[in-house]
Amino acid sequence: MVEFINIGDVPSAEVNRLRERYEPLTESVRELIDATIRTEADDETVAQVKAQIDAATAALRARQIDGAFGVRVTSNGDRMPWGNPVIGVRNPIAPPLTILRGADDSGADDSVYADFELGAAYEGPPGHVHGGVAALILDHVLGEIAANADRPRFTGTITLRYLRPTPLGRLHAQARITEVDGHKAYAVGRLSDADGVTVEADGVFISPKWAR
Amino acid sequence: MVEFINIGDVPSAEVNRLRERYEPLTESVRELIDATIRTEADDETVAQVKAQIDAATAALRARQIDGAFGVRVTSNGDRMPWGNPVIGVRNPIAPPLTILRGADDSGADDSVYADFELGAAYEGPPGHVHGGVAALILDHVLGEIAANADRPRFTGTITLRYLRPTPLGRLHAQARITEVDGHKAYAVGRLSDADGVTVEADGVFISPKWAR
Repeated sequence: MVEFINIGDVPSAEVNRLRERYEPLTESVRELIDATIRTEADDETVAQVKAQIDAATAALRARQIDGAFGVRVTSNGDRMPWGNPVIGVRNPIAPPLTILRGADDSGADDSVYADFELGAAYEGPPGHVHGGVAALILDHVLGEIAANADRPRFTGTITLRYLRPTPLGRLHAQARITEVDGHKAYAVGRLSDADGVTVEADGVFISPKWAR
Repeated sequence: MVEFINIGDVPSAEVNRLRERYEPLTESVRELIDATIRTEADDETVAQVKAQIDAATAALRARQIDGAFGVRVTSNGDRMPWGNPVIGVRNPIAPPLTILRGADDSGADDSVYADFELGAAYEGPPGHVHGGVAALILDHVLGEIAANADRPRFTGTITLRYLRPTPLGRLHAQARITEVDGHKAYAVGRLSDADGVTVEADGVFISPKWAR
């Protein structure tokens, strides 16, 4: 079963303090990922850097949780999806997206959207975003609007239509609900660059039995 | 336009030597990503580790390529999709998958498959694989069978059906072609754990005009 982890009566100030401790480290690891892909350093430099990284990892692992991060919640309602590969402020794999709610440019008054940048780590076709990375991001953005704090919903089916290759660089993603039918919510969304839409998505998101 | 980068008459032995230089570094950064998500280190340790990582990144960036890695090919046919976020041996974001060709358990004599492990960095619902990560992997695996060295094909449309949550841990992905119709190839695939299929996919993959 999929369970959220309630870490108890932790004040918001403490949640913020933990975020301030770990978020800059995560940002540094994101830079390291980019450098690892792009470096032309020689054997000796690479060996030295590898040793430094292994030492850093050992220092971090001296105190670590068992297993994955999970989605931690506090008794007063703070959510910490910090290990998430799309939005997680502690996951170096995440670009990360900061997802906002509000009116979108289609005129829907309740939508979610994010502006973000994808670099070398997200490349599929040369110079362009991997089609599966576009799918990862759109699945997450559609899921954010389809679910809410009262009712988690997970992807049932999602379809992605690729209109043209998505260039690496500054991008925009958005999603909105088209219909809610009991345990199911239908959502549509799209990924775009400065020249317009590159990928369209639609999906149905379903409440798991344990959350009904 | 999407262009492969021909790095010229580089012998296979040199390609292997470069892989041996950079692959262990990438593996170390993957461990660091996992530790970054899971650590409970204190302020002082995190600050020290961040400084070590920033120094490592600076050392790597002292000599680096402009832009993303691209897909490099040599004049004698070696392909180096090393920056790819699913299979790239130089991309720490990639699990990475090692994709093999052969008969699959459906009896199709030409299929691709991969066995791999997903940990904390790929988590969506607590303890489970992010639905978008399943989409990322299946998009790539279907694309591998739909394309080949003579004819690149990129995703036109892909649909993912989530049968149940996919647990983190050891997983298997496979794909096969169901039909080829001119510039289009139709592929199906699935993701599974030890208990069976968790996600099904089907898609159409299209040759770009420049490759026809």
